[in-house]
Amino acid sequence: MKALIFDSSLHLATVPDPVPRKGEALIKILYSSICNTDLEIIKGYMGFQGIPGHEFVGRVVNKESLFYGHRVVGEINCSCGKCLMCRTKRRSHCVNRSVLGIDKRPGVFAEYTVLPESNLHKVPDPVSDTEAVFTEPLAAAFEILEQSPIDAKKSVFVFGAGKLGLLVAQVLKAKGLMYVLFDSNEEKVKKARSMDLLAMPLGSMKKDARAEICIDCTGHPKGILTAIDHVYPRGKVILKTTVARPARIDLNKLVINEIELQGSRCGPFVPALEMLEKKEIKTATMISEIVDFKDILKGFSMAKKKGTVKVLIRH
Amino acid sequence: MKALIFDSSLHLATVPDPVPRKGEALIKILYSSICNTDLEIIKGYMGFQGIPGHEFVGRVVNKESLFYGHRVVGEINCSCGKCLMCRTKRRSHCVNRSVLGIDKRPGVFAEYTVLPESNLHKVPDPVSDTEAVFTEPLAAAFEILEQSPIDAKKSVFVFGAGKLGLLVAQVLKAKGLMYVLFDSNEEKVKKARSMDLLAMPLGSMKKDARAEICIDCTGHPKGILTAIDHVYPRGKVILKTTVARPARIDLNKLVINEIELQGSRCGPFVPALEMLEKKEIKTATMISEIVDFKDILKGFSMAKKKGTVKVLIRH
Repeated sequence: MKALIFDSSLHLATVPDPVPRKGEALIKILYSSICNTDLEIIKGYMGFQGIPGHEFVGRVVNKESLFYGHRVVGEINCSCGKCLMCRTKRRSHCVNRSVLGIDKRPGVFAEYTVLPESNLHKVPDPVSDTEAVFTEPLAAAFEILEQSPIDAKKSVFVFGAGKLGLLVAQVLKAKGLMYVLFDSNEEKVKKARSMDLLAMPLGSMKKDARAEICIDCTGHPKGILTAIDHVYPRGKVILKTTVARPARIDLNKLVINEIELQGSRCGPFVPALEMLEKKEIKTATMISEIVDFKDILKGFSMAKKKGTVKVLIRH
Repeated sequence: MKALIFDSSLHLATVPDPVPRKGEALIKILYSSICNTDLEIIKGYMGFQGIPGHEFVGRVVNKESLFYGHRVVGEINCSCGKCLMCRTKRRSHCVNRSVLGIDKRPGVFAEYTVLPESNLHKVPDPVSDTEAVFTEPLAAAFEILEQSPIDAKKSVFVFGAGKLGLLVAQVLKAKGLMYVLFDSNEEKVKKARSMDLLAMPLGSMKKDARAEICIDCTGHPKGILTAIDHVYPRGKVILKTTVARPARIDLNKLVINEIELQGSRCGPFVPALEMLEKKEIKTATMISEIVDFKDILKGFSMAKKKGTVKVLIRH
């Protein structure tokens, strides 16, 4: 099959078709999309080599599978089921895990991929392919509420109106929570407003503005510092950013103000699919480009450009 | 009155007696003790100048006070009662606060101090003066449980068997929790063991040892890194250390492992006094030296020495 390969460079190649093992599904990719993590991976993040890509919708094509013929999306962490993390309901933290297109497992920028059936979710009919491809990042946005519910009386600031920030803000809005989305880029603020989100330029933010919960979706090492500066004492800062360089944090501020920092990663697919089915999340306006798989390298160039939100790949 | 003054240097001086305002108590100090924060203050922490000291037991001597004649301990944060923090049950985070011997308020290394009556707690008779002086640091140790209760099934590592670490470990032990206390200093480990605490040399810790909750009481900027290295995914790191220099933290680790960092500061006096009254906390073995107030400078020198636990001042 044709696949995108990252080794010393990023290039298309012909590789053997993947072969599903027992309990695994062979999935023909219909659409995939490019995530910031993919852009970090091709800078060396996680030291990953092989086929990148983890956001997809596809159809199961091996007849032995329970999902045969069905349109599916898939959770990206493949776990052993035996380690302490698996036995304590933390399968996405399995110590023996492989992660689709990120760690020790070929990803979805290819004609086919393979995943354990236990990772798959059927896509409801009302959810289109180009909506379904948002399930994985939407689940990551939803993880914030999965980790601990947000009291409706609590104010929330979201920093960064990029791919993830727009999804986080939409989840908060759908749940009736009180949020403001900030970005230093005026175009991104405009984009967010065009999606009926409450968005403000970061430059217009008062120095003493504070919220009970600040969520960093900036993708920059300094995002956390802004979040810490604008959270109330005993408030919570949620970290969604993964970056190459570590940031220097004033720990005294965390201790004196008794701030909680919460790291947050992959999330639950079921509520994400439900929100997509109920049309609570606007995805169409988040799609900057759709390119054919043969033009995926062009897609990567587009994804790196300022102002691009989501680039989808039609397989 | 005689008082210890920190300005450009640390020295004894004669200063005017403090005068209580309405609602305040004039307190004759009986015993005080030296905290790590005091040692940081004389290095420039908080930019404080004046009379340091915030751990004390004393007797109220102004007749107008409701506490007149009573032995008291006092919470150190003096709040306005009007700001948002005060109105949302976060008085210790009052934006207009002064903090006894730490920020904008003269402390207790003197003959007298003044505190709002609302900050005071009567000391029960069975609690001796040299026990009562531990109320404030014990409350800070107890704050960990006040912020969120620890499930008895969860393992806890405490890093740092200094003043605070010994109190934290004792609180965990008294509550029947599963903890191990680590220190790189063998003498401190011996000391902890002599107090019937489960303590181990940090050097003997396996690289892959993990707990659900790691508490940093080391007082070193690197303590947090050790704590992060030894917490399970989705676990919690509690920060008790305040230090001058910010530390560089690998935020990716927090996000990927979905770790929670919780800053923790002052705590509740009522449960601390209850534990002292029930003799659940060993304080006598934590007292390295008791010096008379006139020798307090000698007391500071002792407090700085490796191996010293608590230095008490007899006023």
